[in-house]
Amino acid sequence: MTLRSYPRFITLEGSEGAGKSTVLAALREVLAGDARDTVVTREPGGTPLAEQIRGLLLDTHHEPPTTEAELLLVFAARAQHVRETILPALERGAWVISDRFTDASYAYQGAARGGDLDFIGELERRVVGIAPGMTLLLDVPVAIGLQRARGRGATDRIEAEREDFFERVREGYLARAKADPARFRVIDATQPADVVAAQAVAHLRDWIGANA
Amino acid sequence: MTLRSYPRFITLEGSEGAGKSTVLAALREVLAGDARDTVVTREPGGTPLAEQIRGLLLDTHHEPPTTEAELLLVFAARAQHVRETILPALERGAWVISDRFTDASYAYQGAARGGDLDFIGELERRVVGIAPGMTLLLDVPVAIGLQRARGRGATDRIEAEREDFFERVREGYLARAKADPARFRVIDATQPADVVAAQAVAHLRDWIGANA
Ligand SMILES: Nc1ncnc2c1ncn2[C@@H]1O[C@H](COP(=O)(O)OP(=O)(O)OP(=O)(O)O)[C@@H](O)[C@H]1O
Ligand SMILES: Nc1ncnc2c1ncn2[C@@H]1O[C@H](COP(=O)(O)OP(=O)(O)OP(=O)(O)O)[C@@H](O)[C@H]1O
Ligand SMILES: [Mg+2]
Ligand SMILES: [Mg+2]
Repeated sequence: MTLRSYPRFITLEGSEGAGKSTVLAALREVLAGDARDTVVTREPGGTPLAEQIRGLLLDTHHEPPTTEAELLLVFAARAQHVRETILPALERGAWVISDRFTDASYAYQGAARGGDLDFIGELERRVVGIAPGMTLLLDVPVAIGLQRARGRGATDRIEAEREDFFERVREGYLARAKADPARFRVIDATQPADVVAAQAVAHLRDWIGANA
Repeated sequence: MTLRSYPRFITLEGSEGAGKSTVLAALREVLAGDARDTVVTREPGGTPLAEQIRGLLLDTHHEPPTTEAELLLVFAARAQHVRETILPALERGAWVISDRFTDASYAYQGAARGGDLDFIGELERRVVGIAPGMTLLLDVPVAIGLQRARGRGATDRIEAEREDFFERVREGYLARAKADPARFRVIDATQPADVVAAQAVAHLRDWIGANA
């Protein structure tokens, strides 16, 4: 069983504070300007149930999930998100942009937490089954990203991890990009926000041109 | 990687209304009467986080989980339950009795929902890793069990399934018992509650005698 890739499915990845939400707004504007049917979504989350699972994952007040429970909760939310939100949109021909997707599990639950990458791959094949056509990876040194993210205020359970955790996240993402250069576009996110957004928009326009 | 079996870990299984909670009370009394350190727990649940996951699984008011999301939520709760509640108790030498455990996933998520049994086995090996020494299966025809369970009032998302679902649950449990007769004790739960409880208590006393 291999993954089915959808050209109209685009994902944004990067560690905390890389600028994903900022870029997402620019991409949404492009698709809206073209009057394309577009669904913008995020992970963990993207359906009411998956957002409740997100709450359990990010909560700092109660018992933290173990490494294995975290991994399965993330994939439970993703299974729901794919079936209830992403696939129905793709099947009617819409464009779907997701703020994070399965690559995030390879980076966070795999590289950073030490989860088994083969098991993550099996979960991906068994309960996800689909892949984005293009993934924009916003790459930024950890210290810069954390400084930006923490400027926003309250810290969730993942954001509260130590710097070496996010170093492993960053390396995990870069390893994914290196292994699949046809899908990934890596953007230097130390650049000013308007430059990063312009580069992301240019990738999107190229991609639409090649796949419309 | 195979499962580690713990003699002091005992599970109770059976479809809705088989009488598990009723038997559990009798077993708890035996262990308390012997002044044995005992932890009585249940699934899905058994830790604060796992109980929150149970809430998502049984909820009837919101979006139901897909088959895959249900499977991963159940195993996320179980991973947490094993690590935070069951193993710490077993490691200090306590007895642990759980109202349902992994066999329930083979019956409900596997046999009844049509989930892949090999995948369930892989989840069991990867995130559970342990097995009970003895499992009491309370077997009852579906119509009788449902009548008993529904007598209790409000119906959760699983209890609201149709009878053929519970027929598959029952057959799934009986197949598990047949495949592992050394671990299972099957009790005819159509008998009066005091007879069922007495038979369960006799199995427990035999087991303690052989494993104390
Ligand atoms: N290229 C940039 N240069 C400077 N600041 C930026 C840049 N991109 C985003 N920011 C700012 O950094 C902060 C974090 O950005 P943003 O929320 O987009 O990151 P994110 O990747 O979505 O983070 P998270 O992973 O936590 O969702 C925001 O205050 C944003 O305005
Ligand atoms: N052997 C029995 N004969 C008749 N009634 C019984 C018997 N065992 C239990 N009951 C009654 O049936 C109802 C369901 O029993 P119980 O709650 O113990 O089942 P259960 O297996 O725990 O159900 P569930 O799977 O929903 O938790 C209760 O009202 C209980 O008093
Ligand atoms: Mg963001
Ligand atoms: Mg019960």
